[in-house]
Amino acid sequence: MKHLIITVLAALMLLPASAQQELKGGAKGAPLINKDNSVTFSIMAPEAKKVTLHLDYTDDADMQRQADGTWTLTTQPLKPELYRYNFIVDGVKVNDSNNVYSIRDVSTVMSMFIIDGDDEPCPYSVTNVPHGNVSQVWYDSPTLGTKRRMCVYTPAGYEESHSRYPVFYLLHGSGGDETAWLEHGRAAQIADNLIASGKADPMIIVMPNGNVDENAAPGAAETGLVNPTFAHDKWMEGTFEGSFKDIVDYVDSHYRTMKLKRKRAIAGLSMGGYHSLYISANNPSEYGYVGLFSAAINPKQGVSSPIYDDMEEKVKTQFLQHIKLYWIGIGEDDFLYKDNARFTRMLDKNRCRYTYEESSGGHEWRNWRKYLVKFLPLLFK
Amino acid sequence: MKHLIITVLAALMLLPASAQQELKGGAKGAPLINKDNSVTFSIMAPEAKKVTLHLDYTDDADMQRQADGTWTLTTQPLKPELYRYNFIVDGVKVNDSNNVYSIRDVSTVMSMFIIDGDDEPCPYSVTNVPHGNVSQVWYDSPTLGTKRRMCVYTPAGYEESHSRYPVFYLLHGSGGDETAWLEHGRAAQIADNLIASGKADPMIIVMPNGNVDENAAPGAAETGLVNPTFAHDKWMEGTFEGSFKDIVDYVDSHYRTMKLKRKRAIAGLSMGGYHSLYISANNPSEYGYVGLFSAAINPKQGVSSPIYDDMEEKVKTQFLQHIKLYWIGIGEDDFLYKDNARFTRMLDKNRCRYTYEESSGGHEWRNWRKYLVKFLPLLFK
Repeated sequence: MKHLIITVLAALMLLPASAQQELKGGAKGAPLINKDNSVTFSIMAPEAKKVTLHLDYTDDADMQRQADGTWTLTTQPLKPELYRYNFIVDGVKVNDSNNVYSIRDVSTVMSMFIIDGDDEPCPYSVTNVPHGNVSQVWYDSPTLGTKRRMCVYTPAGYEESHSRYPVFYLLHGSGGDETAWLEHGRAAQIADNLIASGKADPMIIVMPNGNVDENAAPGAAETGLVNPTFAHDKWMEGTFEGSFKDIVDYVDSHYRTMKLKRKRAIAGLSMGGYHSLYISANNPSEYGYVGLFSAAINPKQGVSSPIYDDMEEKVKTQFLQHIKLYWIGIGEDDFLYKDNARFTRMLDKNRCRYTYEESSGGHEWRNWRKYLVKFLPLLFK
Repeated sequence: MKHLIITVLAALMLLPASAQQELKGGAKGAPLINKDNSVTFSIMAPEAKKVTLHLDYTDDADMQRQADGTWTLTTQPLKPELYRYNFIVDGVKVNDSNNVYSIRDVSTVMSMFIIDGDDEPCPYSVTNVPHGNVSQVWYDSPTLGTKRRMCVYTPAGYEESHSRYPVFYLLHGSGGDETAWLEHGRAAQIADNLIASGKADPMIIVMPNGNVDENAAPGAAETGLVNPTFAHDKWMEGTFEGSFKDIVDYVDSHYRTMKLKRKRAIAGLSMGGYHSLYISANNPSEYGYVGLFSAAINPKQGVSSPIYDDMEEKVKTQFLQHIKLYWIGIGEDDFLYKDNARFTRMLDKNRCRYTYEESSGGHEWRNWRKYLVKFLPLLFK
C-alpha cells in the first residue's frame, strides 16, 4: 500500500496547482472528493484486464487504465448522501485499500464515503457539535431467559444533567442487529446534528437486537465469528414483540427516562417497522409516536401468534387512545409498497389519522436515513 | 459473492462426510478452521495469474488454483491466537469478501479470525460469560479546551451494583486511538473472560485517545473521514500527560470509582507505555499499578517538557512512595528493547523492584494482548 500511496501522491504532485485546489475531500483520504462533488476513484492494478467501479445508486462503470497501472474513474457530481462502493478487478470484489471506512450490510462489507452539501454538511457527517455517547449495553431479558445486547445513544448533556429524557426505540430490519442503525443508519450523527440545531429534542435512542435467536450482533456473542445471515430461526413470529417489555423495563430502570406515553416513541425499518406496528398496537397506552419505515405489514406465511391477531381492531383501539403521531414512509419502488397501500387504506377506512411520506426509490438505507431525519424533529413536541 | 458461496457450498458437499466432520470453524464463516486448527483459505479469482496469502506471523504463501477458478491454501495447524490476513491477487490487496470481520491498524484494514485452543477458548474470543458494557464517552477536557472521546468498559454487574470499582487506564500506541485496545487489543473480551473466571477483579477500564490533536478516532470527529496517520502534529511532547488529570477527574466524577492509589492502575503499549511511565512518575501518589508494554522510554529528539525532566529522580520518588506493581514487558526482537534494557538497569541501580517479562517477537499486537492477559490478574490484589 505504501507503493500505492506514493504513486497517488506523485500523481497529485503532477497536477497543476489549480486542479489541486479543486479538491474538496482530497485531504480526507480516498476516494478524492472534488470541489464540484464529483468523485475520483483509483486503484493500482497493473496486471488487471478489466476494472469496474460498483457505486451505490449508479450503474457499474468501467474504469480507465493509466500508464502506471492505476485504474481511475471520475464520476459526475454526486448529491449529498452516504455512498458505498467497491472495485471489481477481473471479477474479484475489492474494497478500497486506501479507505479505512466501510459499512457492513448483512454479510457484505463495502467501502464508504459521504458527500456534504455545498452550504451545509450532510446530516450523516460528524460535525463540530456536541456529541452524544453511544454504549453497548447488556440487559437482562427475563422473558427470553438470557442477557442480550443493545446500543443506547444518550444525548450530549445527559451525563451532566439531572433531567429526565424522552426515549425513542429504533428498530433494525431483517439481516440487521443492534449496530445497524449506528453503522448504516448514521443514527448518532443524525441525532447529534438535529439536536444541536434545535430541530430535534434531546432524547435517549435505544437500538435493540430484534433477532431473538442471537443475543448480540454477529461477532459479539459466544457463537463466535459467524457469517451474518438475513433470516433467523425465530423471526417475525411474535417472540421479540412479546419480550420487548424487558427492554423498556431495563431502560426505565437504568436511565433517567420520562415514563409517559407522550415521551416514548417507537419506529423501525422493514422488519423493525413490523415490530413497531405490532408492539405499539398491542400496547396502546405505551407509545405516543410510531414510525413505520418501509415496514413489513403482514406476518410471514404460516406464522400464528396472538401478537398478530386482530390487528385492525388493535390499531383502531390504538388510535382511539390518542396517538400523537403515526408516521408511515415508503418508497414508490419498494416491494412492500402494496402492503403499505393496503394498510393505509385500512387506516383511512377507520378514520385513523397518520402522516404519510412517499419517497422515490425502494427498500434501501438511503430512504431509511432520510425518514429518520424527517421523523426525529416530529417527536415529543 | 452469491456465486462464491454456492461454489464453496458445492465444494463442501463433494467432500466425504468424514472430512466435513473435521471442520471446527466451518460453520462460523470464512476462513474454514479445521479440527486440527489448520485453516483453509479460498478466494474465487478465475482470471488471476497468481494469488498469494498474506497471513500474520507466517511467510507469504502462493495459493493453488482449482479447476473452478477458486484459489485455495490450507495452512499448518495454527496456535491459539488472533490472526489477520489478506489475499494478493495479481498484486492487488484483497480482503476476504466471505469474512465480515476485519481489524484496522492505523490505515490498514485486514480480515481477521481467531483460533481457539482444543480445551479452552482463546482469551480473545467472546465466550458464554457475563459481558461488560462498552461506551463511547465524550468528556470535557478543560486543559485542552475541548470535548474528547474515550472508550469505557464497565464490568458485568456494574449497572446493578452500588459498589465502587477500581479503575485501570489503558493507553494505545502511535497510530492508535481510543478504539485500538478494543478492536486490535480485544480488551473487552480479555477482561470479560478473566473476570468471569475469577482471575481478575471486576474493574472499570478507561481507554482514552492519546493524540491531543484529534478529539476522537478517525471518522468520529468533525475532521471527517480522514486517513488515519501514525504520527501526529502534537505527540509525545507532554500535552497528553499534562491534560491526563481531566480524564481522571471525569471518570472519578461520573463512575463509581475507588479514588485510591491502590485501586488505580495505568498501562499502555509503545507510546501508551511512554505516557504511562511519565504520567505515573509525575504523579507518584496516584497510581498503585503501572504497566509498560513495549514502552517507548525516551522523549523524541528535540522535545523538551517539564513532564520529561528529571525522569530518574521522579521514578525513584515514585518507588519510594510504595508502588504495588511496576510491570515491564518487552519482546526480544522489539526495536525498543535496548531502551527498555537501559531503563531496567536504571531501576536496578536505584533498587526499584519491578516485574519483568521478556517475550519472543517484536513490537506487535500479539505481544500486547498477551501482556494484558498477564497484567490484569495482578491488579488490585
